Amino acid sequence: MTYCVGLLLDRGMVMLADTRTNAGLDNIATYRKQFVFEVPGERVVAIMTAGSLSVTQTTLARLREAIEDNSADEDGSILRAQTMLKVAGIIGRTLAEVTAEISEKLVRMKQGASASMIVGGQRRGGDMRMFLIYPEGNFIEATEDTPFLQIGEHKYGKPILDRVVRPDTSLADARKAVLLSMDSTMRSNLSVGLPLDLLVVERDACRVAEARRIEAGDPQFKAMSEAWSAGLRDAFRRIES
Amino acid sequence: MTYCVGLLLDRGMVMLADTRTNAGLDNIATYRKQFVFEVPGERVVAIMTAGSLSVTQTTLARLREAIEDNSADEDGSILRAQTMLKVAGIIGRTLAEVTAEISEKLVRMKQGASASMIVGGQRRGGDMRMFLIYPEGNFIEATEDTPFLQIGEHKYGKPILDRVVRPDTSLADARKAVLLSMDSTMRSNLSVGLPLDLLVVERDACRVAEARRIEAGDPQFKAMSEAWSAGLRDAFRRIES
Repeated sequence: MTYCVGLLLDRGMVMLADTRTNAGLDNIATYRKQFVFEVPGERVVAIMTAGSLSVTQTTLARLREAIEDNSADEDGSILRAQTMLKVAGIIGRTLAEVTAEISEKLVRMKQGASASMIVGGQRRGGDMRMFLIYPEGNFIEATEDTPFLQIGEHKYGKPILDRVVRPDTSLADARKAVLLSMDSTMRSNLSVGLPLDLLVVERDACRVAEARRIEAGDPQFKAMSEAWSAGLRDAFRRIES
Repeated sequence: MTYCVGLLLDRGMVMLADTRTNAGLDNIATYRKQFVFEVPGERVVAIMTAGSLSVTQTTLARLREAIEDNSADEDGSILRAQTMLKVAGIIGRTLAEVTAEISEKLVRMKQGASASMIVGGQRRGGDMRMFLIYPEGNFIEATEDTPFLQIGEHKYGKPILDRVVRPDTSLADARKAVLLSMDSTMRSNLSVGLPLDLLVVERDACRVAEARRIEAGDPQFKAMSEAWSAGLRDAFRRIES
């Protein structure tokens, strides 16, 4: 399983992904699910992935190939595309192609393979935008009304986001909100797990402000998780029944 | 959709169900999903249902028929069965039969119908027990390690239960916990909704201590919901980021 969450706010964007993958219940591994492409000052594009690892890895590999291919034009490379909408289009198209190819190989086994992605970023002179891309390549976009997007095991961590995230939420609070949302998810679903990849990008900077891997046992994350547990129990205690 | 939750604690049991049903997205109705059978001082059996309404209504109708049928023996009537385990067996068997019959009618439409139930109760001289009954009639039981059972839309409301419910939780706190668990669920899933049916049964009393319908706009529930929101936001604010 997987949990990835992205927040698109007035002051920038915050993205958080776990790294646990499983084939069945007993084949657990750690794979990065957050990928950042940056030309500092010009653009930053971040991708988070959920779903079949063969689909997500192949999709990322093709996106990287196109970036390195000097003959790829603005319709092929996410670092040359002129707008974030076109970036989402390239990723959606690539994801749909890979999904179709791999699903075809699996037809004999009566299985399918699919994946979804969250893409956020900004190009100099353009808007900061964030998209959720479905396996078929179509996508939706984060808006003022719903400034966050989730893929994977999204339910356990949604109540905290519903309650505290607004477009004018500060980046410090946004960071806290996604970490607590992840904490609730990991507590209820063992197939979502540490380490975590956290990314913060300030609006109009077009460069990464913070990209951090939070390892198991990270003292700051542990303290935050414990403070949240204590705070919740305290809030619970103080409610009149 | 539906959300039902039952807690089996040292001091008794607490059960809470919503009442919203939907056929598709636009056909919303209110149906009771919590049913209490009581012979005060002798036994109390409470059933909560999730799933296809035609299955749950038919199952309940047959259980009631058997109760009223004076020729039904201890293997037929949940008010004559000698143990809670046998009560769960009768309900499981009836549910599986009804599920099979209705699914057979739906075969031509390539659809199935199913339902699951939570059953809790106690008979004088016996243990208080609580079971989750699957559509096929098999069941699991609440234990000290996991003193709560949920059916329907269970994920949004699980984090609060995970954090505060222990076997030695008081019935007042248990009542508060299920109501807040329901509150989180209703906030995130519109197809779970008021009114709610709340039941509290003290251990060894073999009678209902509290059976209350909480209607939309209930001032006490509203105050609790608002206090919880405020408490969560306050706890969030006080965590160092």
